[in-house]
Amino acid sequence: MAETDLSAKRHTLAHLLGAAVLERYPHAKLTIGPAIENGFYYDFDFSGGEKPGEADLPALENAMREILSSWSEMTGVEISEKDARERFKENPFKLELIDEIVNKGEKITLYSVGGFTDLCRGGHSENPAKEIAADSFSLDRVAGAYWRGDETKPMLTRMYGLAFDTKDALAAYRVQIEEAKKRDHRKIGRELDLFTFSDIVGPGLPLWTPKGTIMRSELDRFVWELRTKYGYQRVTIPHITKKDLYETSGHWDKFSDELFHIHTREEKEYVLKPMNCPHHTQIFARKPHSYKEMPQRYAETTMVYRDEQSGELGGLTRVLSITQDDSHVFCRTSQVEEEFFKIWDIIDSFYSTFGFKLRVRLSFHNPEEPEKYLGTSEIWKNAEDALRTIAKDRDADYFEAPGEAAMYGPKLDFMATDSLGREHQVATIQLDMNLPERFDLSCINEKGEKERIVMIHCAVMGSIERFSAVMLEHMDGNLPVWLAPVQVRVLPISEKHTAYAAKVLGALTAEGVRSDVDTADESLGKKIRNAKKEKLPYLLVVGEKEMGDNSVSVESRDNGKLGTMGLEDFVKKVVGEAKARA
Amino acid sequence: MAETDLSAKRHTLAHLLGAAVLERYPHAKLTIGPAIENGFYYDFDFSGGEKPGEADLPALENAMREILSSWSEMTGVEISEKDARERFKENPFKLELIDEIVNKGEKITLYSVGGFTDLCRGGHSENPAKEIAADSFSLDRVAGAYWRGDETKPMLTRMYGLAFDTKDALAAYRVQIEEAKKRDHRKIGRELDLFTFSDIVGPGLPLWTPKGTIMRSELDRFVWELRTKYGYQRVTIPHITKKDLYETSGHWDKFSDELFHIHTREEKEYVLKPMNCPHHTQIFARKPHSYKEMPQRYAETTMVYRDEQSGELGGLTRVLSITQDDSHVFCRTSQVEEEFFKIWDIIDSFYSTFGFKLRVRLSFHNPEEPEKYLGTSEIWKNAEDALRTIAKDRDADYFEAPGEAAMYGPKLDFMATDSLGREHQVATIQLDMNLPERFDLSCINEKGEKERIVMIHCAVMGSIERFSAVMLEHMDGNLPVWLAPVQVRVLPISEKHTAYAAKVLGALTAEGVRSDVDTADESLGKKIRNAKKEKLPYLLVVGEKEMGDNSVSVESRDNGKLGTMGLEDFVKKVVGEAKARA
Repeated sequence: MAETDLSAKRHTLAHLLGAAVLERYPHAKLTIGPAIENGFYYDFDFSGGEKPGEADLPALENAMREILSSWSEMTGVEISEKDARERFKENPFKLELIDEIVNKGEKITLYSVGGFTDLCRGGHSENPAKEIAADSFSLDRVAGAYWRGDETKPMLTRMYGLAFDTKDALAAYRVQIEEAKKRDHRKIGRELDLFTFSDIVGPGLPLWTPKGTIMRSELDRFVWELRTKYGYQRVTIPHITKKDLYETSGHWDKFSDELFHIHTREEKEYVLKPMNCPHHTQIFARKPHSYKEMPQRYAETTMVYRDEQSGELGGLTRVLSITQDDSHVFCRTSQVEEEFFKIWDIIDSFYSTFGFKLRVRLSFHNPEEPEKYLGTSEIWKNAEDALRTIAKDRDADYFEAPGEAAMYGPKLDFMATDSLGREHQVATIQLDMNLPERFDLSCINEKGEKERIVMIHCAVMGSIERFSAVMLEHMDGNLPVWLAPVQVRVLPISEKHTAYAAKVLGALTAEGVRSDVDTADESLGKKIRNAKKEKLPYLLVVGEKEMGDNSVSVESRDNGKLGTMGLEDFVKKVVGEAKARA
Repeated sequence: MAETDLSAKRHTLAHLLGAAVLERYPHAKLTIGPAIENGFYYDFDFSGGEKPGEADLPALENAMREILSSWSEMTGVEISEKDARERFKENPFKLELIDEIVNKGEKITLYSVGGFTDLCRGGHSENPAKEIAADSFSLDRVAGAYWRGDETKPMLTRMYGLAFDTKDALAAYRVQIEEAKKRDHRKIGRELDLFTFSDIVGPGLPLWTPKGTIMRSELDRFVWELRTKYGYQRVTIPHITKKDLYETSGHWDKFSDELFHIHTREEKEYVLKPMNCPHHTQIFARKPHSYKEMPQRYAETTMVYRDEQSGELGGLTRVLSITQDDSHVFCRTSQVEEEFFKIWDIIDSFYSTFGFKLRVRLSFHNPEEPEKYLGTSEIWKNAEDALRTIAKDRDADYFEAPGEAAMYGPKLDFMATDSLGREHQVATIQLDMNLPERFDLSCINEKGEKERIVMIHCAVMGSIERFSAVMLEHMDGNLPVWLAPVQVRVLPISEKHTAYAAKVLGALTAEGVRSDVDTADESLGKKIRNAKKEKLPYLLVVGEKEMGDNSVSVESRDNGKLGTMGLEDFVKKVVGEAKARA
């Protein structure tokens, strides 16, 4: 309920912003103004006169507060299409909205408060003056936005506001945003030398350094270890295919815009793969499978490419080269629940290691948009019922979201809450009864008959790029020992101790500890500061004393100075921590 | 000398074939007929009349033998351009050859024997009847070939012959060919279930099964282990780039035909990478490097794509998706020799493990075709001198081959002789002084100045696909324990022994031995035959006796029945063999 109330407040504040803007900029044309996560926005067309910018936001915010005190009763009324058209005859945007409402056969409603009226579907605070605290919101920023998100249509001015239930909640959100800026994964990526971009390679195409590649590989190895226990096997596919594969899979029809098309000098047409499932079906289909061999569980960590509108490619959250830790289970219908539980176990183990809390979204299809999906409504009903049962049997924290399904089936999407309280969509498990139909995938059952199978798609990290971004910000770059590209740095106090430092390094690397020695011509203090900037888990200072008794003086990033330890004891300690993924 | 004699015989036999064809098919137009590896061919234009096929080869072969007995003296004579044009006025192919000879300012020569005369540069047996044994050659097959290999020009008929010094050598070659057919890696790939192709994905795009992926991964792991000792670090790049990267590298000019071009919906142009070096330079260039940090050694196993003319895509020897085990060393000029030796050590260790013998080709540029290469002749001279010195210092079995260099520098190409005596080009090390210029790559030297560096490119396997094909045929599919996807199969004698078989399997997998149990409803004999078809290194038969004393009855693929061994002893044995890559 609290969630819904807050959403109503945010929606009401969008109206309030509309009223304040109209008061000061009477030439403005209102378009749409919804509630969003953390607040609201309103899109205005200022093409008829002065166009306010960010500098004008404080005055508008004050105007909103003044108006708010007089908004004591929000009332809605249904009107005819004719009246609606008359009322908004000078606003082509609202007229377009009226067309849509009429086409859908819905009612046209107007909402009014304090002399301000807007075309609206409802969902507001009833008594805004009383319900909305004047200090619980603020205007945030101004941006350009195309009408209906369509770049062929007019560019509007979008004003964003933040809104919460209380002043304190608003302040807390602002602190979170400031902290998030400090933790921006792009900044951490530079400081830890994990990845880089090149202007001549292009945005959205990260180049991973040796250190970044170690981090990626360790993440991937962890997922692989978890999968190995459950009988997964790695397979390998190329990144391109003839378009025939996607004609069969249905991606050619439903997904063609997002495919990267390749034309050869012999005028052949290839496609860069946007996902791995169709290729994997062709490995499964290479030979008949007995029910005794089922399930077949294929895993592969490989890059996929999608022709996304470039918009704001930047950092690792939106990239063109997406490394998926993908898997496809080919199984009998009777094996679905067990396989889902296995995958769910893997996901739980993986995310709990990082301290993420998970909840689950059951992403179902939208029955009103059948053109977006493959397969009959019966197949969809069966698949969605199966997922709901699985979520119930697992006693999971879940909610349903129609319209969020994949093209070929419903999904379990896992939402992880990070250390700043932000929620990210991460892992996903998808049940697919359509591709097996389209590729005619089956096994031979106990009766010797062909039996249609199903597929379960799962990427545990989703994409390594996106997961890395979320994880680096969640941990503020403090990678745990098992993930840190450099786990230990050895700092000799002076040149006299260089040989001993090399011995320490040798003892560490012999046991597989990733470590180095800082031999730069700099003071010990400077070297310690450098190591801290790089967020290394352990620093070992070695001088006369340590050289004398084969020990090391240990400073832990997370637990401060640990004093002197025997070299062997320290090696054991760090090897143990890495192994335990502590 | 023997080699040269044989080449002269083969060339002479091409003339002989020409004479035999003209005798029976007077409308034939002769074009060119060179000696090649294992024999010779001649390209004919039969468009003026009957066109012989493979069925006509025996008669032609007999005709060649009859003519041969009268070919006792081959004589050459120089003629004028005018006489040459007159003589060949009805043969447009020869006229085109005459144009070329004239353009190059070379002499025009005719060679005659037994009443047959051909336009030819020379290099024949002087007395064919005496020098060429009538049973040392045979006609092999007929194929189509475009004039000058250009698909816009007329299609000719190419007749291939085999020719050796003696009847026995010819017979031995035929046995080798038969053996090679039995060992065709495509056949082995199916029998061992390593890879598959799909019509809707397309030819040249192998899909690697779980078993094939294990083999690939083990090969890659071996190379990586060897590289780790020498300080290599893995990096990760995307498969696409803006074309700007290749404009800077020079590939855009010299290599554009072979690039797969990608056009996006926003009309941007990307390219699928045909090699990794330009991307890797951008990782090196992300920050300045002190001389203390040099060399930087980057390695990455990743797929590259080249738009090759599809011709005969098939199996793993010619693929569109090429997995390179690539590396790039960024080093100072003073470090080149040491780094070359390190790489050479890696290559020697790798290939000797498989029992390949290596010799080295110094692939230099062709000074007559400067347009094919980047950089000044001085840079090339320095680089080629350096390579020659390295080969001499290494005391290697080497030869020089002008015209075989890469676009950006000379190469050491390693040629491996397989168990059938065939030679394959495998690993390659390239010295590159051009890309560092083009990308302005440098380090800061002892004096604090920018110092231009050089790059060394090396792929140890070359491509995993091609190496796998060569290796599978070399070993006739008998993968050594460390490479075998299934190392051990357990065969319970009857159902009563299934539980013990599972225990044996558990003991094996606990120690990382890749193993399975055959529980099919089939006789023991059938199961053993199946396992042998799959060329598994070890079979363990378990029944009453083995169950009683915790043992296994061992049959080795390579060494036959080894009798009964304690379970623990066997596990130790196989783990040891895998570790030693024995």
